[in-house]
Amino acid sequence: MKGQTLFFRNPIYVLGCSSIAGPKEGEGPLGKYFDKSVGDDLLGQKSYERAEVKFHASVIKYLLNKTKIPSAEIDACFAADLLDEIVGSSFTMREFDIPFMGVYNACASFAEAIISGSAMIEAGLMRRVICSTSSHFSTAERQYRFPLELGNQRTPLAQWTVTGAGAVMLDSENGKIKVDLATIGKVIDFGVKDANDMGAAMAPAAADTLRAHFKSTNRAPEYYDLILTGDLGEAGSRTLKRLMSETGYDMENNYEDCGALIFNREAQKVGQGGSGAACSSMVFAGYVFKKMLSGEYKKVLLAPTGALVSKTSSLQGESIPGICHAVSFVRINE
Amino acid sequence: MKGQTLFFRNPIYVLGCSSIAGPKEGEGPLGKYFDKSVGDDLLGQKSYERAEVKFHASVIKYLLNKTKIPSAEIDACFAADLLDEIVGSSFTMREFDIPFMGVYNACASFAEAIISGSAMIEAGLMRRVICSTSSHFSTAERQYRFPLELGNQRTPLAQWTVTGAGAVMLDSENGKIKVDLATIGKVIDFGVKDANDMGAAMAPAAADTLRAHFKSTNRAPEYYDLILTGDLGEAGSRTLKRLMSETGYDMENNYEDCGALIFNREAQKVGQGGSGAACSSMVFAGYVFKKMLSGEYKKVLLAPTGALVSKTSSLQGESIPGICHAVSFVRINE
Repeated sequence: MKGQTLFFRNPIYVLGCSSIAGPKEGEGPLGKYFDKSVGDDLLGQKSYERAEVKFHASVIKYLLNKTKIPSAEIDACFAADLLDEIVGSSFTMREFDIPFMGVYNACASFAEAIISGSAMIEAGLMRRVICSTSSHFSTAERQYRFPLELGNQRTPLAQWTVTGAGAVMLDSENGKIKVDLATIGKVIDFGVKDANDMGAAMAPAAADTLRAHFKSTNRAPEYYDLILTGDLGEAGSRTLKRLMSETGYDMENNYEDCGALIFNREAQKVGQGGSGAACSSMVFAGYVFKKMLSGEYKKVLLAPTGALVSKTSSLQGESIPGICHAVSFVRINE
Repeated sequence: MKGQTLFFRNPIYVLGCSSIAGPKEGEGPLGKYFDKSVGDDLLGQKSYERAEVKFHASVIKYLLNKTKIPSAEIDACFAADLLDEIVGSSFTMREFDIPFMGVYNACASFAEAIISGSAMIEAGLMRRVICSTSSHFSTAERQYRFPLELGNQRTPLAQWTVTGAGAVMLDSENGKIKVDLATIGKVIDFGVKDANDMGAAMAPAAADTLRAHFKSTNRAPEYYDLILTGDLGEAGSRTLKRLMSETGYDMENNYEDCGALIFNREAQKVGQGGSGAACSSMVFAGYVFKKMLSGEYKKVLLAPTGALVSKTSSLQGESIPGICHAVSFVRINE
């Protein structure tokens, strides 16, 4: 570890990806990239929580089917979601005969899962792992904010939790895209207390991790074809670009945010854009992975961002610390 | 990975441990082993949640002080607690300038943290990490069950969430106790739905992981001086011993449960014993580590157990799946 960055010396490949999207996400600009978009966000279940579990279990089943790898050959699953006590992931894993490591850094969890899985492969302890996250608009709204039935107005800086799930399979031997290094973030708290303005809460953490990343790797932002934060949304992304530019890092040309990409903000009325633990996993698994396979992107830095908040902490007047982990993916030259 | 077990080839040492206990835990049979027992479980804070953060932050500060390692030399902290969205750990980490990986497998999280940290050291990616967990009776009661003010009667199979925190520092170079291998558990659900009978929900997961452990390591239960589950409590421990004995593993002579050890059940009126994410970390860091240093125990298998449940999942009538990870510690011969 140098600075906050882990430099992987052994190959860690992305063998495959899968994604499943809710109705709104399917109708968004990235709709055609997801493996499947469903029309019913309840998926025939009797609660949104059960629906989220079905999304999460389905995305793992898709991944096993697509890669033709039997579940017995998966050494572990590193999974996360936003439900209290990550019961979405825990209940998902009850359907699989695979060792389970639950991770949680809010919407940065997808990066954390990839980092944990990559370390296992780097160490030679595991050969193949799945890293997955899910989120659901309706489970998140009622858990973090208000019951949907209240019909609360949304504030201008609010974001829209994505419904769906995304997963990657990491492999020690096969694949065209490699995880070459990753930067682990610290908890950064600038005192933001508005649970409807997650972008502001998370942007300082994203800036902190990206600066640490560029410094420890001796890479400049332009090294990457694409730098992609998780779910800062439009306003949060602008904040991040300003924070970075003030410290000498220009990200005007190759920076995007998964939350800003996944919806058509104006037409879909999603406030500042998408958010949620599945926002970065769906955009990576559905969109980025395919663009990397096709060669359009060769070097991508994925930096999912998390707001470390609970309903109780909000009600108790606590501020919302943020965290961000960054994972560098490289397309192998053939 | 063989079976579900990771065999570490590089040395992973336990460099040091720290523990801090609430009033009831300090008065229990292991009271004298904890670094500190406090008289006020609020620690002067205005909420139990803030108190839990103070417990957690304090145990990390103790560990840094005891080992005389500056925080800049800690590569990462793997931490967990039982608060929704593990805000206890997240808010703790805002006080430290250390990269943070939040983990969550309920009360099995302490083992998960050690496994994740060990993998980083095994891979040569990190040199020194902290693994810590906290829990608090009063935050857990009101989150998972009822407001304390209701004064609900406790059911006979209920356990008592421990108040306190425990932490270990893993190091690639120095220490007298090594992590030699670890078995990662699967999610096991036998359909138990009583949120006041966690022992029954977790015992099948403990049995599943221990069987996988013995099989993949070719070790028998008697290989260990002590096999220690996390928080099955008295009734859950009896269930585990029966489940193991029915499949040919006799654990009558060298098996204990942290939850059963930490309280004097009759005198302290704690139902079946202690539980909580800090139960195994406090008993290991306070008691077992010292008994291993003194040579009383040379080989210990620590198998913390987790009940994968949230208030919402309980209210929705879901069953409670369990998980258990097992970590083998060995005293080095001098």
